[in-house]
Amino acid sequence: MRSLYCGEVNESHIGQEITLCGWVNKRRDLGAVIFLDLRDREGLVQVVYDPDLPEVIKKANTLRNEFCVQIKGRVRARPEGQVNKDMKTGAIEVLGLDLTILNKSAPLPLDSNQTNSEELRLKYRYLDLRRSEMTERMRFRAKVTSAVRSSLEGQGFLDIETPILTAATPEGARDYLVPSRTHKGQFFALPQSPQLFKQLLMMSGMERYYQIVKCFRDEDLRADRQPEFTQIDIETSFMSSDQVMEVTEKMIRELFQTMLDVDLGDFPRMPYSEAMRRFGSDKPDLRNPLEIIDVADILKDVEFKVFSGPANDEKGRVAVICVPQGAAKFSRKGLDELTKYVGIYGAKGMPWLKVNDIDAALATGSEGLQSPILKFLAKDQVTALLERANAKTGDIIFFGADQYNVVSESLGALRLKLGEDLELLQGEWKPLWVVDFPMFEEVDGHMHAIHHPFTAPTNLTAEELEANPVGALSDAYDMVLNGCELGGGSVRIHNQDMQAAVFRILGISDEEAEEKFGFLLEALQYGAPPHAGLAFGLDRLVMLMTGASSIRDVMAFPKTTTAACPLTNAPGNANPDQLKELGMTTLEEEKQDEAASQE
Amino acid sequence: MRSLYCGEVNESHIGQEITLCGWVNKRRDLGAVIFLDLRDREGLVQVVYDPDLPEVIKKANTLRNEFCVQIKGRVRARPEGQVNKDMKTGAIEVLGLDLTILNKSAPLPLDSNQTNSEELRLKYRYLDLRRSEMTERMRFRAKVTSAVRSSLEGQGFLDIETPILTAATPEGARDYLVPSRTHKGQFFALPQSPQLFKQLLMMSGMERYYQIVKCFRDEDLRADRQPEFTQIDIETSFMSSDQVMEVTEKMIRELFQTMLDVDLGDFPRMPYSEAMRRFGSDKPDLRNPLEIIDVADILKDVEFKVFSGPANDEKGRVAVICVPQGAAKFSRKGLDELTKYVGIYGAKGMPWLKVNDIDAALATGSEGLQSPILKFLAKDQVTALLERANAKTGDIIFFGADQYNVVSESLGALRLKLGEDLELLQGEWKPLWVVDFPMFEEVDGHMHAIHHPFTAPTNLTAEELEANPVGALSDAYDMVLNGCELGGGSVRIHNQDMQAAVFRILGISDEEAEEKFGFLLEALQYGAPPHAGLAFGLDRLVMLMTGASSIRDVMAFPKTTTAACPLTNAPGNANPDQLKELGMTTLEEEKQDEAASQE
Repeated sequence: MRSLYCGEVNESHIGQEITLCGWVNKRRDLGAVIFLDLRDREGLVQVVYDPDLPEVIKKANTLRNEFCVQIKGRVRARPEGQVNKDMKTGAIEVLGLDLTILNKSAPLPLDSNQTNSEELRLKYRYLDLRRSEMTERMRFRAKVTSAVRSSLEGQGFLDIETPILTAATPEGARDYLVPSRTHKGQFFALPQSPQLFKQLLMMSGMERYYQIVKCFRDEDLRADRQPEFTQIDIETSFMSSDQVMEVTEKMIRELFQTMLDVDLGDFPRMPYSEAMRRFGSDKPDLRNPLEIIDVADILKDVEFKVFSGPANDEKGRVAVICVPQGAAKFSRKGLDELTKYVGIYGAKGMPWLKVNDIDAALATGSEGLQSPILKFLAKDQVTALLERANAKTGDIIFFGADQYNVVSESLGALRLKLGEDLELLQGEWKPLWVVDFPMFEEVDGHMHAIHHPFTAPTNLTAEELEANPVGALSDAYDMVLNGCELGGGSVRIHNQDMQAAVFRILGISDEEAEEKFGFLLEALQYGAPPHAGLAFGLDRLVMLMTGASSIRDVMAFPKTTTAACPLTNAPGNANPDQLKELGMTTLEEEKQDEAASQE
Repeated sequence: MRSLYCGEVNESHIGQEITLCGWVNKRRDLGAVIFLDLRDREGLVQVVYDPDLPEVIKKANTLRNEFCVQIKGRVRARPEGQVNKDMKTGAIEVLGLDLTILNKSAPLPLDSNQTNSEELRLKYRYLDLRRSEMTERMRFRAKVTSAVRSSLEGQGFLDIETPILTAATPEGARDYLVPSRTHKGQFFALPQSPQLFKQLLMMSGMERYYQIVKCFRDEDLRADRQPEFTQIDIETSFMSSDQVMEVTEKMIRELFQTMLDVDLGDFPRMPYSEAMRRFGSDKPDLRNPLEIIDVADILKDVEFKVFSGPANDEKGRVAVICVPQGAAKFSRKGLDELTKYVGIYGAKGMPWLKVNDIDAALATGSEGLQSPILKFLAKDQVTALLERANAKTGDIIFFGADQYNVVSESLGALRLKLGEDLELLQGEWKPLWVVDFPMFEEVDGHMHAIHHPFTAPTNLTAEELEANPVGALSDAYDMVLNGCELGGGSVRIHNQDMQAAVFRILGISDEEAEEKFGFLLEALQYGAPPHAGLAFGLDRLVMLMTGASSIRDVMAFPKTTTAACPLTNAPGNANPDQLKELGMTTLEEEKQDEAASQE
């Protein structure tokens, strides 16, 4: 129906008769002449209908925005002075010789100025996707998956599909359930990840598996969460964590090179403990130059209990962030707001110190400084602090003093906020690997797996692990980019004794282990190979690469924050007969009965 | 952990020290020497441990089948006379210098002679997949999807993901339901296909969409059905049915060329009516040389009512299949069995005629023939019959006479059975397109869509269609290979008036249309482009290409015929608290209460 795409017409076609299909992006009339911007997936081209062809211009006169048309015309150079350098096809135009209206369009329910609510955008998603920004994101995403597939397949990874209707998975979030008709009263779960299946594929000798696969979590939604999301899922046999990191880092590096012409370079590696210490986060944004600096040693003898308490507590932390040239940027009110902000993360206050004259401050320990806590500090403490923080005239120093995690989290959050508010970010892309995570964290006397319970410890036997689980590090790795976790993975346990030890540490009884993971434990008996893997969040990766502000903007048909689809009206009511076939009933009626009886 | 794969070791490595990882496929001891066949994804290699290295052979001595090991060794030529030409690595062997046992294996629960029940194979799927036949199928499938993606992406198709949690779809089979937690009492449905989403993507201007995507149907299972299956899903804008057929035929032709070195040639096209007439099937297996031949005109005046009744009925059919050299192959008992067989398809009997001497038969109309119905036929009827059927000495002719569909289906089934039983199939691959389907079929006075209700008619206006729906042909096409439907599709309706007309013909009320497809109808208002598409069944395609006998054999983790997974024990019981959160309850308890009260 067309000879080429609108966006492809160029000066080489001048003089040719062509056929185009697309949508009327805009119509302008100049006297008796009608100008159309005709749009298809590949771009826009200007079509001109002039009154020499009365039949055709009569038809052209009926055109409105978003009519779908087929046009025949002759390409010609635009007249001198009408060349549009901002437009790919701006050097030419198409003189319209014929016109077929393929479909009319009512006025669109979406504003072209894009101030539409997200609800409206999702209800008319098919119109929202016509915007070139959205079309480009879909195209970009398709190119990303294509490049990822090429890269992995070139390295011998096999694309193998795993089930969507499966058993409850061990990831810990809430599963979506699917009632079974042939096994009434029983349920499938939608996978939170293909974790166990990909491990089983290693046990089946597939050696290198990948899949770009939908995963599901029934959690309350945030900007970067969706009920269904897509993972680039990878698993390998006979590879160390270093090798997995190399392979996947190479893949991401090549992806950025191909798609964005960006060289990410070698990714630095940072132990979890260092990330928490310096940045208060296990996914530090290294574009942010601010760092958290420990000062407990300097302040452990001050009379001010807010400082000396945590400074002398093994589980406490006293630390600062020094913001270069930040002193002038915070009024009293601004400081109060920041104090409120860190309060969200549990900080009970946020002492600060402005450096108005660093020379005077270093000389006197008090002059040239402004701070509500100055009175508690001795001269040598002040100078040691200023030197440790490398403070300069005009800087402001913020203090955190509390339990270790409270200080790390609140100063970590403060660091991010200041980085954004004060526009401190440096460089465009800052990737890193975070490694050496603890195996477990202790909460209320119970041990929890930091990753999932199939993660192997680094260089420990099962006996050594059980002897000192708190100190054990896992052979896990997270890839972080600009403060976002792009992906994470680990070496898995391939040894039955080790797996049993981890279950014991986690307080999972033999019965529970057998019931939930019996098939995995059994599989470990039959020559399971050493294996390791990783999963990337595709939606988030594409969001970062396209600069979109939400993963919803890089999905064709996302859900709202209440997990609904305004376009198809899903979820909807079910046929009661079908529920009966499934051996199910809703509690709706019951509730209605109750409500009635209370009236 | 390895320097190369087992299956890759060859004579170019002789003299080199290499490291291999894999599984002990077989161990043989010859005196003090231990021979291992070591297996990995790429194949087998022979490893020899001899007593010169006492430490190592002591370890080797503990090896059992399926132990997972890492070996270091030196490649050497096999001694004269021990070269194994049937083995890819049969010219060399590896002298074992060191050995690390990565994991032990208990004796496998599966027989190596592969007489395992399907239940057992699925329970230990990870072991079943270790068989080279299964590994090869998974690898073949991965190559197929990769080739399909390359082909489509090379033609500008964009891979766009559509939702798995969605609204009930219009395909007509039973949906899997997913209860919503945030909208209690309401349900998502898992898609039977992304039909409406891919049409919406055309309305959004994506122009060329594809996806290799999971689809779901809660139906009772047969050999080639699974609760979840995978489609190669395609949709295009501004393309005619001819163009869609060209693009997808090219894709399949290239696929067979690349994967199997088979040239399928140009696919013939056959109208649905011809397929039903000549083969009694809308997916004829053209490898089968038998055809159904109409003979109503010859038999409409016989006294035998079984023939003359249908022969004079507009909705009847009288036809034969002539089996070359088939006369000697059917005893009385064999003929009785065939009669029973066609009975399944509604045939009330199956007259037959053996041609023992064609010259005598043509000369006399009765001699040289053997048949229970000969007495009803006049000489000119017999000779006309024999000539129409092109009968030769030694042939047998089977008759069908009944309603048109009964004759077509029963003789169609008979044709397939005879083709298989008598090994008549000719050629390896016989593709074709079946086209010109009727739009509707009338059942009990109601019109049903042969394809789905979004299928466009061929060359008809909405008015013409409504005036004569029974005679209307749809612009749909099925790709058939060796009697299997590989894929099917159609030009879609892009015009609101036409869609409304089809809904009226189908007896779908405005309210029902609005409720089920309101968003589609609304979308047609806003310049929806002409569009068309097709979907292939990937599982079936791979099954055919690999010669597997079930789609289960080309899926990594299929379900049983009762839609269960013996490996993970899915489906399973749900946590009652989670059901409560979903506003659901099972009828189990209720039933248990009833059962108790009846005791």
